[in-house]
Amino acid sequence: MKLAIVGGGQLGRMMAQAALPLGIKTVLLDPSDQACGGDCGDLIIADYADEKALDQLTDKTDAVTFEFENVPAAAFARLERALPAFPPAKALDTARDRWNEKSLFQSLNITTAPLALVDDQASLEAGLEKVGLPAVLKTRTLGYDGKGQKVIRENKDIAGTFTELGSVPMLLEGFVAFDYEVSCISVRSKQGDCKFYPLVENEHRQGILHKSQPLINHPLQSKAEQAAQSVMNALDYVGVMAFEFFVKGDELIANEIAPRVHNSGHWSIEGSACSQFENHVRAVLGLPLGSTETLHPIAMLNVIGARPDISKLLSVPGVHLNDYGKSERPGRKIAHINISAPSQAELTVRVKAVEALLVNQL
Amino acid sequence: MKLAIVGGGQLGRMMAQAALPLGIKTVLLDPSDQACGGDCGDLIIADYADEKALDQLTDKTDAVTFEFENVPAAAFARLERALPAFPPAKALDTARDRWNEKSLFQSLNITTAPLALVDDQASLEAGLEKVGLPAVLKTRTLGYDGKGQKVIRENKDIAGTFTELGSVPMLLEGFVAFDYEVSCISVRSKQGDCKFYPLVENEHRQGILHKSQPLINHPLQSKAEQAAQSVMNALDYVGVMAFEFFVKGDELIANEIAPRVHNSGHWSIEGSACSQFENHVRAVLGLPLGSTETLHPIAMLNVIGARPDISKLLSVPGVHLNDYGKSERPGRKIAHINISAPSQAELTVRVKAVEALLVNQL
Repeated sequence: MKLAIVGGGQLGRMMAQAALPLGIKTVLLDPSDQACGGDCGDLIIADYADEKALDQLTDKTDAVTFEFENVPAAAFARLERALPAFPPAKALDTARDRWNEKSLFQSLNITTAPLALVDDQASLEAGLEKVGLPAVLKTRTLGYDGKGQKVIRENKDIAGTFTELGSVPMLLEGFVAFDYEVSCISVRSKQGDCKFYPLVENEHRQGILHKSQPLINHPLQSKAEQAAQSVMNALDYVGVMAFEFFVKGDELIANEIAPRVHNSGHWSIEGSACSQFENHVRAVLGLPLGSTETLHPIAMLNVIGARPDISKLLSVPGVHLNDYGKSERPGRKIAHINISAPSQAELTVRVKAVEALLVNQL
Repeated sequence: MKLAIVGGGQLGRMMAQAALPLGIKTVLLDPSDQACGGDCGDLIIADYADEKALDQLTDKTDAVTFEFENVPAAAFARLERALPAFPPAKALDTARDRWNEKSLFQSLNITTAPLALVDDQASLEAGLEKVGLPAVLKTRTLGYDGKGQKVIRENKDIAGTFTELGSVPMLLEGFVAFDYEVSCISVRSKQGDCKFYPLVENEHRQGILHKSQPLINHPLQSKAEQAAQSVMNALDYVGVMAFEFFVKGDELIANEIAPRVHNSGHWSIEGSACSQFENHVRAVLGLPLGSTETLHPIAMLNVIGARPDISKLLSVPGVHLNDYGKSERPGRKIAHINISAPSQAELTVRVKAVEALLVNQL
């Protein structure tokens, strides 16, 4: 079998790494000749709009998938005509637009923060009446890792905010004073079977994910699974989907979905019987889903902008470095470190030891 | 960093797979254009005696290692002049010749079966006087997976046996009526640090490894570690070495070493904090060794000659298929399956489920 992947960054690379031991070859499309996915799959270097390259990508392959949601519509349509393409266009379209996404959540009775649509400074002011302060203004599309959003705490923050974020269509959300953030990594097969990894607690620094750690037997697990399943069913989803939530007391408040393998699921490579990457590959190729059971304590730390000393890092027991082979640049995710341990107490010790070695540049 | 690997079969391939997440590129040399290691490293297709290819292999790389022990001496010498080459020539030379190997064990007071050197039919008969019946006659070099050896049970088996095995230098060993076979996968760093995986119980079928499973806290663990450490120290060993033993009651009887990553250590990819492949790569590149702790119950089954139904196989929870991407042929190792489980009881159930799906052709 052969899988086509649009995008040759670290997510495509880790899909290719997961496919290889299953006897599945991969071919990746990326505009950059530095794309790190080329280290373990065939790389086609071309723009995503290049029709010849798209046709080359789907030649003698069995399915096509995506490492990011912003696939140009024309490219998606061309790929979909040639091959089974997952996740489906409906999922990418929904996830790309925060208003559509939140509207879907509300239609499925999934709790969200109060919402208002913002098209100009006037509708921003009207929205604030409805949503209240503090609130978060976000562009409807193209935001990630804290980019394309701004917290409005006081009335004086309102003036000029619409222009500041680019005068594009936006969404205003009530600010959730959450206790912590979690995500639910889920996977759905072509036959509609669903599996869920345990809820993951995510800790961000300056808007970028710093640490993820699964929470075994969390009381909100089944509520999160129900929400994820209803969204995946509504979207005829196939593959891995990440669902981010805020936790406030015993409340689970939906934040957003990512229609792809996700940074908060990287711990599953060493922590789960079947990783998110392998399960995504299995799903899009119509193979049975793998077990999402967690077999031992595990956590993940991101390496951002600069690499720690590799000898010191590898001296910490239970460290699994996953370096994406990318050059260093502030704010860039260049590796992650999974940390295994025989007990939660020992895991805490090891995580602290690794954190002390990080030289991240955000 | 970049690692050169002589041999592009499944062992080289799994070294390359382990190197990739460490940010280490690999280049492999193999005479076959079908060599499966080329799927995740650069492949140079040339004979091992090709000097130009050997020089290309060592160009801009940091160290060279080997996936097999029968490296031509001239090739090894050329590589060693260019780069740090591990394991050292002394280790390959010793492992290649069963008489030298057993003599080393005896010089280090490691228990072996009774031995005799055989150069012709007359010395075979003299050897049988010393060793007794039953006995095993083995060629000094080039045997593996039960090839190049014959069990002599009765006096009538003696006639013609020397000629039958090729009239080459041989070794006669007393037959050990062992309870079971184990191996100790060990790793030694450039600085002489040693780490050991738990003893593995190995079950063979028709001389080919069928199943491997680690035995946690086995009473002979420390005795095996002492033997492995003394052999590695004597050979100035760097990298992973496998040591095979027979267990008879509370006795540990040395059988042979393999100066490389080994089939009986493949379970460590999913079962250990750091796999044998990653530890080998770390050792030969002078990086710190990783933890050899076993984090959950695990076993390995070999896929030989023919592939099982992949959909049925992947439906068994905890299954990690590692397909080498090789074509099917009776007797050929084409994949292995690691099986994880949360308990030993559940592991037994899963292993039986997988065994029922195998369609091995020996």
